[in-house]
Amino acid sequence: MEVMEAVKGRRTIRRYKTQAVSDDALQTVLEAARWAPSWANTQCWSFVVVRDAQKRAQIAGYLHSSTPGRENRAVQALRDAPILIVACAERFLSGFHRTGEHKGFPATDKGDWFMFDLALAMQNLALTACSLGLGTAHVGNFDAVAVAKLLKLPQNTAVVELMPLGYPDESPEPRPRKELKEMVFYEEYGKTKP
Amino acid sequence: MEVMEAVKGRRTIRRYKTQAVSDDALQTVLEAARWAPSWANTQCWSFVVVRDAQKRAQIAGYLHSSTPGRENRAVQALRDAPILIVACAERFLSGFHRTGEHKGFPATDKGDWFMFDLALAMQNLALTACSLGLGTAHVGNFDAVAVAKLLKLPQNTAVVELMPLGYPDESPEPRPRKELKEMVFYEEYGKTKP
Repeated sequence: MEVMEAVKGRRTIRRYKTQAVSDDALQTVLEAARWAPSWANTQCWSFVVVRDAQKRAQIAGYLHSSTPGRENRAVQALRDAPILIVACAERFLSGFHRTGEHKGFPATDKGDWFMFDLALAMQNLALTACSLGLGTAHVGNFDAVAVAKLLKLPQNTAVVELMPLGYPDESPEPRPRKELKEMVFYEEYGKTKP
Repeated sequence: MEVMEAVKGRRTIRRYKTQAVSDDALQTVLEAARWAPSWANTQCWSFVVVRDAQKRAQIAGYLHSSTPGRENRAVQALRDAPILIVACAERFLSGFHRTGEHKGFPATDKGDWFMFDLALAMQNLALTACSLGLGTAHVGNFDAVAVAKLLKLPQNTAVVELMPLGYPDESPEPRPRKELKEMVFYEEYGKTKP
């Protein structure tokens, strides 16, 4: 599949078939994540692949409701999709001075760039999954500390997002996007013409 | 270009030809960013396209040195590449409760997810650029406050990264990556076999 086809064709999938995903396909999407760039090539990411149905259901129980009184729509996704990729990041690596007198201190006003680098890897993964006919969703609204405890993460490694991986059981329309002219400026902020 | 070809073929490019980039190509890569997913579809991103050579050189002057005593290798990239995309994000949108009694408070222990969402968009952009034969680099180590001031960003909007866009004048080898077995675990952290 062409890059632009995947970019435009990828949807957030919340309904999955329980159909198995081959180990080949899983390795391919993880390989795509591995090739992402990162701050000074620190590669702070790691991925816990959860296939066990009980564990997936338990993690689904840690999802927050995004609309008060309504179950998060990703709960069923985590229960049905045969694979859950738990995306983790080691803290205090990306975005920090690696040498010199400031070693160990943040290099920018953003502090830790772990969220940034992990997202680069997860978008590589999601687009590659799409090119294989697989659905994914970026799920961020959950109790990350509870999941970290369940999966026995080491200190300084955080769970960032949950990504179900499986064959889509829906074909949702794209959510509306702002127009380019609302988000692209030229030479300075607010100038909408080159 | 196939998705995986772009994922594996994309390199961080720091030497650029001064050759112009067509407006069509620019619009195509921005369109790819536009299609990225985001927290509750908040689309907190915006992009300032800087073509003016003097302004690019001025921004290059805000880069931090990553190795003490040595100029950041991205300085020349920002001077040579005909286009600089300054990636910005509105703060306090992504990752926050949008409704209910907690409206305006962070939904997770990660606080603002602006870095995550912007990275999704920028990886869409970088892969699409690669598919068009264009080079990019994710440049994060610079004085973002100075750039925000220069480009007259509104309050609560931050400059996150700088991305030169142009035709590559180098074909660097990929930087080494950790092996999958060093970053992929099964069912719980540290278990390297399914």
